[in-house]
Amino acid sequence: MTTNSAPTTAITHIAQLVTNDPSLGEGPLGLIQDAAVVIDGDRIAWVGESSKAPATDNAVDAAGRAGLPGFVDSHSHLVFSGDRTAEFNARMSGRPYSAGGIRTTVAATRAATDEELHTNVARYLAEALRQGTTTQETKSGYGLTVEDEARALRIAAAHTDEVTFLGAHIVSPDYADDPAGYVDLVTGPMLDACAPHARWVDVFCEKGAFDGDQARAVLTAGKARGLTPRVHANQLGHGPGVQLAVELDAASADHCTHLTAADIDALAGSRTVATLLPGAEFSTRAEWPDARRLLDAGATVALSTDCNPGSSFTSSMPFCIALAVRDMGMTPDEAVWSATEGGARALRRTDVGRITPGARADLVLLDAPSHVHLAYRPGVPLVSAVWHKGVLI
Amino acid sequence: MTTNSAPTTAITHIAQLVTNDPSLGEGPLGLIQDAAVVIDGDRIAWVGESSKAPATDNAVDAAGRAGLPGFVDSHSHLVFSGDRTAEFNARMSGRPYSAGGIRTTVAATRAATDEELHTNVARYLAEALRQGTTTQETKSGYGLTVEDEARALRIAAAHTDEVTFLGAHIVSPDYADDPAGYVDLVTGPMLDACAPHARWVDVFCEKGAFDGDQARAVLTAGKARGLTPRVHANQLGHGPGVQLAVELDAASADHCTHLTAADIDALAGSRTVATLLPGAEFSTRAEWPDARRLLDAGATVALSTDCNPGSSFTSSMPFCIALAVRDMGMTPDEAVWSATEGGARALRRTDVGRITPGARADLVLLDAPSHVHLAYRPGVPLVSAVWHKGVLI
Ligand SMILES: [Zn+2]
Ligand SMILES: [Zn+2]
Repeated sequence: MTTNSAPTTAITHIAQLVTNDPSLGEGPLGLIQDAAVVIDGDRIAWVGESSKAPATDNAVDAAGRAGLPGFVDSHSHLVFSGDRTAEFNARMSGRPYSAGGIRTTVAATRAATDEELHTNVARYLAEALRQGTTTQETKSGYGLTVEDEARALRIAAAHTDEVTFLGAHIVSPDYADDPAGYVDLVTGPMLDACAPHARWVDVFCEKGAFDGDQARAVLTAGKARGLTPRVHANQLGHGPGVQLAVELDAASADHCTHLTAADIDALAGSRTVATLLPGAEFSTRAEWPDARRLLDAGATVALSTDCNPGSSFTSSMPFCIALAVRDMGMTPDEAVWSATEGGARALRRTDVGRITPGARADLVLLDAPSHVHLAYRPGVPLVSAVWHKGVLI
Repeated sequence: MTTNSAPTTAITHIAQLVTNDPSLGEGPLGLIQDAAVVIDGDRIAWVGESSKAPATDNAVDAAGRAGLPGFVDSHSHLVFSGDRTAEFNARMSGRPYSAGGIRTTVAATRAATDEELHTNVARYLAEALRQGTTTQETKSGYGLTVEDEARALRIAAAHTDEVTFLGAHIVSPDYADDPAGYVDLVTGPMLDACAPHARWVDVFCEKGAFDGDQARAVLTAGKARGLTPRVHANQLGHGPGVQLAVELDAASADHCTHLTAADIDALAGSRTVATLLPGAEFSTRAEWPDARRLLDAGATVALSTDCNPGSSFTSSMPFCIALAVRDMGMTPDEAVWSATEGGARALRRTDVGRITPGARADLVLLDAPSHVHLAYRPGVPLVSAVWHKGVLI
């Protein structure tokens, strides 16, 4: 353990550790009781029972706290500016409110300086990290011009390596009378400017946004530029989004609130992850997606926050776990898996979402003896320590 | 401001302050923009606009954060021992589980040492305080013998001044065949031993626990010993609890999930507060109480956690606010009022739950520009600073 220059650290006496590797421990979560994890630089070097831990330079006693991989939040919209508190307040208070919804955010984001946007992204990433999120995807989609979308992606990429081009979030207000023209812009000059800064291409495939043919054009163009698709699909009603995602081998179909049996079969027969975003249903008082049905059919399910100022302003993965258990039919074990390994699969990552030798050293300790407490103690900030890339934050 | 020996502190530039005093600011919450609060010892000495704040010994810049009174959590069960994680996990996973429910907690609490119970109460009170709860009621009810109930109250009273005798939580397993004998015990020797340590007497008036006549006997006996009634009422179904609470001028009828029109009229025409406990409905997947109906009828509504290891293991008042807005028809303003001033009314306190000159200096700052964010950003630990009795924790 002493061949590298970085000092090694052992975290010992973890009451119960979620590894997400069934070969390392019990059940699908690969649970180890009284576990230890050895960190070497930014990687996990060893995982096992505390009593068998190798000698290390440093040691931290977890003192009976539970451990799990850092959360992988595979869906958020953090490059924004502006304030929509009054809109939320009016909606929840049953008062009419005539603001522009997402257009308010588009206008404020366009008007913001680079520095303001950097500050906002950094702020919400730090907030999420304190709550245990060690991998965070985030999207453009509040710029909707070539320059503003490219700027959003450059800013996002300065803070995280999971960046998604979502020029096709809504039809830009500048193209209200020419949606086909906007799709041409997104698939042409905007994609040219944006592709170098992103890993993923996304589209909001929904009535009122982009239909199946438009969504296919956006995703196909993105694929041709080396981006991998992910799709906002079937949030507000039935539609072609999920099946399009599967057809194009998208990494993830996100929302999945309104699914037909054929949609579920398609997901179950694919490697496209169904990413559920319970914060959105919570904050818009919408119907819950049926995670149970997806899981029973054999689909892979991820949980994510959808953090954005309009429809889901939570950055809390523990909150999403508690909602998934209460309202979406997931067991606590399934919800914790979906918020870690599930998110990693939605981002096609094998180095995060698990506590295994060689994985990135992203580890969370809870002020509780088991991961079940994330659902058992809803709303309580249980995350008591976070290692991110081997560093205790 | 310098006549006392304690140094005075001004907290300035509070983006928006909830005072709960309509004479001090705008609307029912008495909102002040860019506010300042002056603390003198353990009391609030001055409240107003930042620009008009008097000179003080110390100053803290709230830097655009929102402020509100510390939360008043008027209903919890913190004197317990034992672990019911497996029971919760089984219930939420749809697996059968043959444990004893509350009896598990009774057995573990009886078996615990005083020191263990002190440690547990202190731990959960500290956890709640970090989340902004500066007044916490807590109950006995897991002892169910004369000695164990009195011990629970002595221990609770060492940590908080809002202590409730709940010997009538369930019929003690020791009296399974003689519920009348248990009521005699509760209203006789147990009350004698417990009354000196408590302010309140409570009873779980519900099918399977104590009926209307038994509940009346318990509350009446408690009143005769100087305790003020509060009632666990109408949680699991319709019953006499709410009307009994009003008849006996109880400070609060708690749960109020199943109410008839007559129950609502009784509450609206009384000074008995309807205390709603959304954490219990959340964690048992039960039907939500209808706060809207109560508010529209003119009843006073409080929000509380019901923190306990069986049915609601949250200590988070912000979480309860978010649920009340999402699922119980409360506006964000109403929910914040109910979690502060509402709780104070349920405890018949005028010195907490408000930011007014002379009130106890219990103040919370949020990492957000308004109190609405407690509902707008569910699950996010927004509480960034807490003053309790004038001391920054
Ligand atoms: Zn989204
Ligand atoms: Zn209770």
